[in-house]
Amino acid sequence: MQQQAPPLPVAAADKTPRTARGQRTVRIILDAAAAEFGERGYHDGSIARIAQRAGVAIGSFYTWFDSKEAVFRALVADMSRQVREHVVPHILAAPDRLSGERAGLAAFLDFVRTHKALYRIIDESAFVAEDAYRAHYVSVAEGYATSLAQAFGKGEVSDGDWQVRAWAIMGMNVFLGLKFGVWDETRSTADIAAAAHALISDGLAPRR
Amino acid sequence: MQQQAPPLPVAAADKTPRTARGQRTVRIILDAAAAEFGERGYHDGSIARIAQRAGVAIGSFYTWFDSKEAVFRALVADMSRQVREHVVPHILAAPDRLSGERAGLAAFLDFVRTHKALYRIIDESAFVAEDAYRAHYVSVAEGYATSLAQAFGKGEVSDGDWQVRAWAIMGMNVFLGLKFGVWDETRSTADIAAAAHALISDGLAPRR
Repeated sequence: MQQQAPPLPVAAADKTPRTARGQRTVRIILDAAAAEFGERGYHDGSIARIAQRAGVAIGSFYTWFDSKEAVFRALVADMSRQVREHVVPHILAAPDRLSGERAGLAAFLDFVRTHKALYRIIDESAFVAEDAYRAHYVSVAEGYATSLAQAFGKGEVSDGDWQVRAWAIMGMNVFLGLKFGVWDETRSTADIAAAAHALISDGLAPRR
Repeated sequence: MQQQAPPLPVAAADKTPRTARGQRTVRIILDAAAAEFGERGYHDGSIARIAQRAGVAIGSFYTWFDSKEAVFRALVADMSRQVREHVVPHILAAPDRLSGERAGLAAFLDFVRTHKALYRIIDESAFVAEDAYRAHYVSVAEGYATSLAQAFGKGEVSDGDWQVRAWAIMGMNVFLGLKFGVWDETRSTADIAAAAHALISDGLAPRR
């Protein structure tokens, strides 16, 4: 949910696919890895089963990834980018930053409901690849802080502590995604986003 | 950070210590388990090393806990309760709920800075004991929702969606704790809590 994200590598630098065919294969392997790690977790997940799910030979897997950890790290970066690519257009299409936050949260919740592996994979990266976990959140928070400061410049939000606000709103969205995306789909995502929008727009102080 | 928490069992029901001496031993074992799992994680942590850190015989460990998973589950419940016992008095001592939220967040950040194992253990429980992980957050969120609804009754907060607000504020505090408690201690906890308080009191909408 940020507007200016640095490009994240999909595979190890020396193994980045340069042809359309290579890119398709990497895409298929990453989707297979998401299914494998999402279902079995990192420790029980295996390269053999990822290759099998992807319908590629083990040799083809190793053309693109050196190890189970390498494909897992690439997957964290890939999911981080997928979330942003899904959410950011909704934010940018809104008339102002706070309406954008509401549209972005609804889009995020929709994404989570259709990509249940997301939380397991990002959360497990805290243990398997802590630097990738930290990079994911630091990058999202920096995007938030930048985008809120820009919105202040346009008179769309009040002045304040961008760093604290960025981490606070990110955490809010992550936990709303956990509760209303992963665990509980009974309420509409638009409804959740509207309630969260009211909170971050006007706060909790009694109306004067 | 809730006011009315159901009591959480420290050990398996049939192994709850009934004497002061038993309670002391369980306390020592849980502290040793926090150090062991916080440092090595669940998979690499061992009962032998927990007993060694606690200075008790393996047999004494098994008097109180059936397995590594049992002591881990007890630890999650114990840390969940420790956080609440540390934070809730700060909330209750404040003149109103929003000042209480500010004091509670500062107290939570102080707790995190002095209990670095907390995040690793709670986060790892998502994989080792998902029901305990979920129970921890559901219980904290329910406490929040109840406490905010009570504050509305006293005119201290505006009306709104208690469930969404509870999960949002919990997520906010968890991520502020990750950033400013676990990863980055450069800013004062009072300063972070003041900025977060401004956000949840007044929101981001431009001042009218």
